[in-house]
Amino acid sequence: MVKNIKEIEQQFLEYIKKMAGFEETISLMYWDLRTGAPKKGMEQRSEVIGMLSSDLFNMSVSAEMKSYIEDLSGASNLSAVTKKSLQECKENYERNTKIPPAEYKEYVILTAKAESVWEEAKEQSDFEMFRPYLEKLVSFNKRFITYWGYKGHKYNALLDMYEPGVTVEVIDRVFGQLRERIVPLVQAIANASDQPETSFLFAHFPKENQQAFSLEILKEMGYDFQAGRLDETVHPFATGLNPGDVRVTTKYDEKDFRTAVFGTIHEGGHALYEQNISNELIGTPLCDGTSMGIHESQSLFWENFVGRHLSFWKKNYSTLKKYSSGQFDQVSTEDFYRAINTAGPSLIRIEADELTYALHIMVRYEIEKALFNDEIEVKDLPKIWNEKMNEYLGVAPANDAEGVLQDVHWSGGSFGYFPSYALGYIYAAQLKHAMEKELSSFNELMEEGNLLPIKEWLTKNVHQYGKMKKPIEIMKDVTGESLNAHYLIDYLEKKYKDVYRLT
Amino acid sequence: MVKNIKEIEQQFLEYIKKMAGFEETISLMYWDLRTGAPKKGMEQRSEVIGMLSSDLFNMSVSAEMKSYIEDLSGASNLSAVTKKSLQECKENYERNTKIPPAEYKEYVILTAKAESVWEEAKEQSDFEMFRPYLEKLVSFNKRFITYWGYKGHKYNALLDMYEPGVTVEVIDRVFGQLRERIVPLVQAIANASDQPETSFLFAHFPKENQQAFSLEILKEMGYDFQAGRLDETVHPFATGLNPGDVRVTTKYDEKDFRTAVFGTIHEGGHALYEQNISNELIGTPLCDGTSMGIHESQSLFWENFVGRHLSFWKKNYSTLKKYSSGQFDQVSTEDFYRAINTAGPSLIRIEADELTYALHIMVRYEIEKALFNDEIEVKDLPKIWNEKMNEYLGVAPANDAEGVLQDVHWSGGSFGYFPSYALGYIYAAQLKHAMEKELSSFNELMEEGNLLPIKEWLTKNVHQYGKMKKPIEIMKDVTGESLNAHYLIDYLEKKYKDVYRLT
Repeated sequence: MVKNIKEIEQQFLEYIKKMAGFEETISLMYWDLRTGAPKKGMEQRSEVIGMLSSDLFNMSVSAEMKSYIEDLSGASNLSAVTKKSLQECKENYERNTKIPPAEYKEYVILTAKAESVWEEAKEQSDFEMFRPYLEKLVSFNKRFITYWGYKGHKYNALLDMYEPGVTVEVIDRVFGQLRERIVPLVQAIANASDQPETSFLFAHFPKENQQAFSLEILKEMGYDFQAGRLDETVHPFATGLNPGDVRVTTKYDEKDFRTAVFGTIHEGGHALYEQNISNELIGTPLCDGTSMGIHESQSLFWENFVGRHLSFWKKNYSTLKKYSSGQFDQVSTEDFYRAINTAGPSLIRIEADELTYALHIMVRYEIEKALFNDEIEVKDLPKIWNEKMNEYLGVAPANDAEGVLQDVHWSGGSFGYFPSYALGYIYAAQLKHAMEKELSSFNELMEEGNLLPIKEWLTKNVHQYGKMKKPIEIMKDVTGESLNAHYLIDYLEKKYKDVYRLT
Repeated sequence: MVKNIKEIEQQFLEYIKKMAGFEETISLMYWDLRTGAPKKGMEQRSEVIGMLSSDLFNMSVSAEMKSYIEDLSGASNLSAVTKKSLQECKENYERNTKIPPAEYKEYVILTAKAESVWEEAKEQSDFEMFRPYLEKLVSFNKRFITYWGYKGHKYNALLDMYEPGVTVEVIDRVFGQLRERIVPLVQAIANASDQPETSFLFAHFPKENQQAFSLEILKEMGYDFQAGRLDETVHPFATGLNPGDVRVTTKYDEKDFRTAVFGTIHEGGHALYEQNISNELIGTPLCDGTSMGIHESQSLFWENFVGRHLSFWKKNYSTLKKYSSGQFDQVSTEDFYRAINTAGPSLIRIEADELTYALHIMVRYEIEKALFNDEIEVKDLPKIWNEKMNEYLGVAPANDAEGVLQDVHWSGGSFGYFPSYALGYIYAAQLKHAMEKELSSFNELMEEGNLLPIKEWLTKNVHQYGKMKKPIEIMKDVTGESLNAHYLIDYLEKKYKDVYRLT
C-alpha cells in the first residue's frame, strides 16, 4: 500500500495538536484549583482531570500513535518541527508501553497510597511507617529500568526523564567539583566575624504593597502582562498554557517580604521562558521547557543573578522603600544587599540559600544513585541521610521529619528528579558567563533598570527553542562546552567572600 | 444476541459522565476567558474550546450513542435517572442528526459571519447591511423546522429548544393577558403626578464597598461560598461547573451602585438553582436548569421579589448606608424603595425595568412568530418593529441600532429564545404565590434577614430536580395549574400603584 507521507504528516500534526489542547485544558484546571476554585467542587473536578489525563495518556500510546511513528520514522522530507515532535512522541510511547499495563496500574495505585502514607509518616516523624512503601516504589522503578534499558549506570534511565543526556558520569564530575569548593566556603562564612544584620527584614510589609512591587518588578523583567497574570497561592508556581498565556503566582508573607519578592522573580523567570517559546511550536509537544534543569536555570538566573545582585537593588531599592512602611529607612543599599544574601547550613532543602542549596541536592543524589545501584538499602536511609548531611553541611537532623522524610518526591515515585535543581544553578552560571561576553554591561543594564537585553539574550539562546534542542545541545551551542561547574563556583566564591567580607 | 441491559446501562452512565466532564471543562474555559485570561492566549484558547466542543458534539451523535438509545429505550428496569438522561440524549441526538451534516456546517459558518456583520450593522445603524444574513438565517431555520417536525404552529419547534412544552397557544394566552393590563398601567405611571426622586442614586459608591456589600447579600441569600466565588466581569453571569462549583460574576459601576447590587442578586438567584441540584444528577445531562425560563424565574425572583422589596431593604438599607459614602443620609427607606422601583417606557430591552420588560419581549415574540409562519418578511422588520414598540410601549426608535438591531440573538440563529425571559417573570410570580401559602411570613422573613426558608422552599420545589422535571411539570406540581399570568399582573399592579401612589 502506497502511503502519502505529506498526508500522514498532516494527520500527525492534527493529532499532536489535539494532545496539546488536552494539556492546556489540564493545566488550566490545576491553575484554577490552586487559585481559588471552590472546595466543594474539588471531588468532581478531580474526576474530570483524571478523565482528561487518561484520555491524553491513551492518545500517547494508541494504535494511531504507533502507526504515525512507524509511518513517519525515517521519512525524509518532514519539517524540522515534525521530526522533533515525532522523536518526543516516540520516546514517550516507548517509555509508556514498555511497562506491562497491569504493572503500571498497580504502580499508580501504589503512588497514590504512598503519598498519603508519607504525609502521615512525616507528621509523626516515623520513617518505619513509610519504609515498606518506599521499598516497593524503589523495586518497581528498578524493574522499570530493566524494561526501559539504560547505558552505563542504571540510574541514568531515571535521570533521562528529567535531564535527557545528562548522566551519572557528568553529574559525578560537576557535583564533585562543586562540593570540593563549596563545603569549605560554607564553613568559612559560618565562622566569619562580620555577619550581616538582618533584623530589619522582618518588619510588617502590607500585602497590597508587596503585590504592587511584585507587579513592577515583573514588568521590569519584561514579563508580558498581555500574555499572563499574577495571582496569589499557598505555593508559588508558573504555568504555561500556551506562549500567549503564561501565568505566575506568588505568596505574600507580611512578616517577610522576601517570600513574595524573590518568589515572584523566580516564577517570573520560569514564565519568561514559556512566554518566549517560538510560536511555530504551539500545538506540539515541543512547546515546553526542554528540561527541568534548564527551566530551573531560568528561574534561578532571574532570582539570584538579577534579583539578588547589588546593581539590581541600586535601581530598585528606592521603589521597595516607597512601598514599605519605613523598615529600610536606616539601611543602606549595601547593608540591604548583604542581608538578602545571607547563607549558611540548614536542614530543610526548600528553605536553603543559593550557596548551600546544591549540597542538599547532593545528599539526595548520592542516596538515589546508590539505591538504584544496589549499594544501599531503603531501611538504612535515615542513617545514611544524617551522615551525608553532617558530611556536606555540618548539621544533623534531630528527627526524620526534618531529615529523610522532608521531601514529597520519593512518595510519588520521582527518582532522578532532584539533580535537576542543582543542574539549574550550574547551567545558569554558565549561561551568565556566556552572556557577559556579549553584554559586557550586565551590571550597568541592571543599574539602569534596562533588563530587556538580558531577557532578549536568553530568548535568543534558550527560550525560543522550546524542546527543539536538548539541554546539553543548548549549552554547547551557547557556551561552546558541556556542563562546567566552575562558573558557578567562581560566582559563589566571589559573591560570598564579598558579602561576608572574607579576605 | 442477548445483551445484558444492566451492563449497557452502566456503560451509558460512564459515557454521559464523560460528556458532563467535557461540559465542565468548556464552562471553566469560558469562565476563565471572561475573568481575566490573558489576551494573547485567546486565539489558542478558542481553538482548544472548539476542539473540545466538537468532541462533545461528536459524542452526542456517535454510533455509540445511537446504540445506547436503541438498546435502552423501552428497557423496563432502568433507574429514573437513567431513563430521563436517555430521554435527554435522545432528543438531542434527533435534533442534531436530522439536519444533513453539510447543511449544518454551512449554517455554523453563516452564524459566525452573521455575528460580526450584525456588530458592524448595529454600529452603523444599518439594517440593510444585516438583512441578507438575517434572511439566510431565517430560511435555514425554516428548513430545520421541517427536518425536526412540529405540532401546531411551526414556531413551536423553535420554542421547544428553550422552553420544552410551552407552545404558541400557551404564550399567546399569557402574553395577551399580560399586555391587556400592563399597557394601561405603564401609561398611568407615566402620567402619575408623584414621581419618585432618584438623583441620590448616582453618587460615587466605591467599588470595594460595593463588592463587600454584594458579598454580604449573597451570604444572606444562602449562596454557598464553599461551592462558589464572586468575580468581576464586563457582563455579569453565573456558571455552574457542577453543584459544588457555581460561580457568580458582577459588574461595578461607581456612578450607579444598582448595577452591581441587582446584578449580583440576579446572578445569585441563578447560582442558587445550580448549587442545589441534587447530587445524584452529577455527571448526567440532567444536572442543569430545566429550561431558560425556569432559570430566569429564579434570578428574577431574587432580584425583584426579594431584592426590590421594601421588607428586604428594611433589613439591609442600614448596611448599604454603611458601605456608601453618605449618599443616602437624607433618604428614608420608603423613598429609597420608590427610587429603585421606578418604571417607564424605554427603547432598549436590557435596560428595561420589571414592569415594561415583558412588553419588549412581546415585540420580539410577535415578530418571530409571524416570520416563521410566513406572515411577514425580513425586509419589513424595521418598520414592524417600530410599529409594535409604539403600540406596546408608546415609544419609537430613532434608528435601527436602538430598534431592530439592538439584540445579538438573531445573528447567532437564536430564534425562540426571547419568550423565555418573559416566561421567567410569569413563573416567578406564580411560584411566589404558591410559596406564600406555605410561608405566610414572607415579608417578615425578609425583614429579619432570614432568607433561608425562601431558598429552601425553592430548592424543595424547583432546584433539586434539575432536568428531571419539565418546566410545565414543575409548575403543575408546585402550583396546581399550568402557566397563569394573573399572579404577575396582580403583583405588578399592586406594587406600581403603591410606588407611584396611584389611587
